[in-house]
Amino acid sequence: MSDAASPNAPSNRSRINRYRWLAHYDKETIYAILDAMPVAHIGYIHDGNPIVTPTLQWREGNRVYWHGAAHGRMMTATDGAEVCLTVSILDGLVLARAAFNFNINHRSVMVFGRPEAVTDPQEKTRLLKRFVDGYVPGQWDRLRPVTSQEINATTILSLPLSEASAKLRAGPPEDNDDDYAFPVWAGVLPIRLSVGVPQPDPRNLAEVTVPETLSAFSIG
Amino acid sequence: MSDAASPNAPSNRSRINRYRWLAHYDKETIYAILDAMPVAHIGYIHDGNPIVTPTLQWREGNRVYWHGAAHGRMMTATDGAEVCLTVSILDGLVLARAAFNFNINHRSVMVFGRPEAVTDPQEKTRLLKRFVDGYVPGQWDRLRPVTSQEINATTILSLPLSEASAKLRAGPPEDNDDDYAFPVWAGVLPIRLSVGVPQPDPRNLAEVTVPETLSAFSIG
Repeated sequence: MSDAASPNAPSNRSRINRYRWLAHYDKETIYAILDAMPVAHIGYIHDGNPIVTPTLQWREGNRVYWHGAAHGRMMTATDGAEVCLTVSILDGLVLARAAFNFNINHRSVMVFGRPEAVTDPQEKTRLLKRFVDGYVPGQWDRLRPVTSQEINATTILSLPLSEASAKLRAGPPEDNDDDYAFPVWAGVLPIRLSVGVPQPDPRNLAEVTVPETLSAFSIG
Repeated sequence: MSDAASPNAPSNRSRINRYRWLAHYDKETIYAILDAMPVAHIGYIHDGNPIVTPTLQWREGNRVYWHGAAHGRMMTATDGAEVCLTVSILDGLVLARAAFNFNINHRSVMVFGRPEAVTDPQEKTRLLKRFVDGYVPGQWDRLRPVTSQEINATTILSLPLSEASAKLRAGPPEDNDDDYAFPVWAGVLPIRLSVGVPQPDPRNLAEVTVPETLSAFSIG
């Protein structure tokens, strides 16, 4: 429970105060969580109200990216405005001896900042290729080629990872010292994301085969 | 793609405009998603900035509940303020013939409103029992009994489900008509949450046994 793991929060709002011994601010930890879980929940303010929209993120270097329909509420409301992008992975239920110490094992990242739109069509195309190939290596070149209308209809936003924090909990329950003598089973029920067997589209042409690189996909 | 599934959004901000044919506003659909996925991402405004905090939610009737440390940022900032509670479940990658039609199968719920704190200690205790027993039926009565200090140190917030929407996508890719002749594999890669084998705490007493009801737990 030392603070050794979290000496340097990049800002006040990204400093983790609750359970601060679970906090990490190093790039390696932050990158690993972002790379393991493409689903992000993006928080923004629209007409004075907070909104949280799930979307897919991907990371390149020290930035995180997401994309969407150019005229969608989330993309127009977040372009240049303050956002909070949160990625979380549930790793297990932690069943303690006291309800008060019930917990979850998890990994999460929170990123604050003002996203910027990528405007150059070539850079947008490069980033979308990276997005698609991040799921299935080589897939972009197999697909029906993208059109300039499609690139124009897509907004890509990006956020630097300069104001980010991670929080991790793993391992067995932590009960009050006195409670370890209480006769109830305690432990962890692991939870993970798993990938199933690819389901071909019934409208596939007879000659197509599933890309071999699809089997490399993992999540969580 | 008809609007038949989404005639009655409860408010403007909860009306789904993008892919509105995926929208649902009926209680049955909203309840099923909330009941399948305890992890919620709660968006709120703190010092003018949006923040998204993952936490565990549970539903009772037409309300959703979450709890936390009474003095934590999330609990104090969300009590009585506008929030957006979002729950999302990733069901699969939808690999289309064009990158533009890349998609995910998913189920999500968005709830808007101002949460209220539950203040009565007996009601708080009843709700926490429901929270714990929602994971492992009967578990509350097996645990070291809760203390009044623990109840006081816990804030429970609740939000009515009166301003909620759901969004679901399932099934194969939807490509442009012309693209179905393009010779690339298309289909769905299913993703699901799975529960592993319980890991006993190394500090368990020799005589304790894993509760049978733990095997009933499922998620997603």
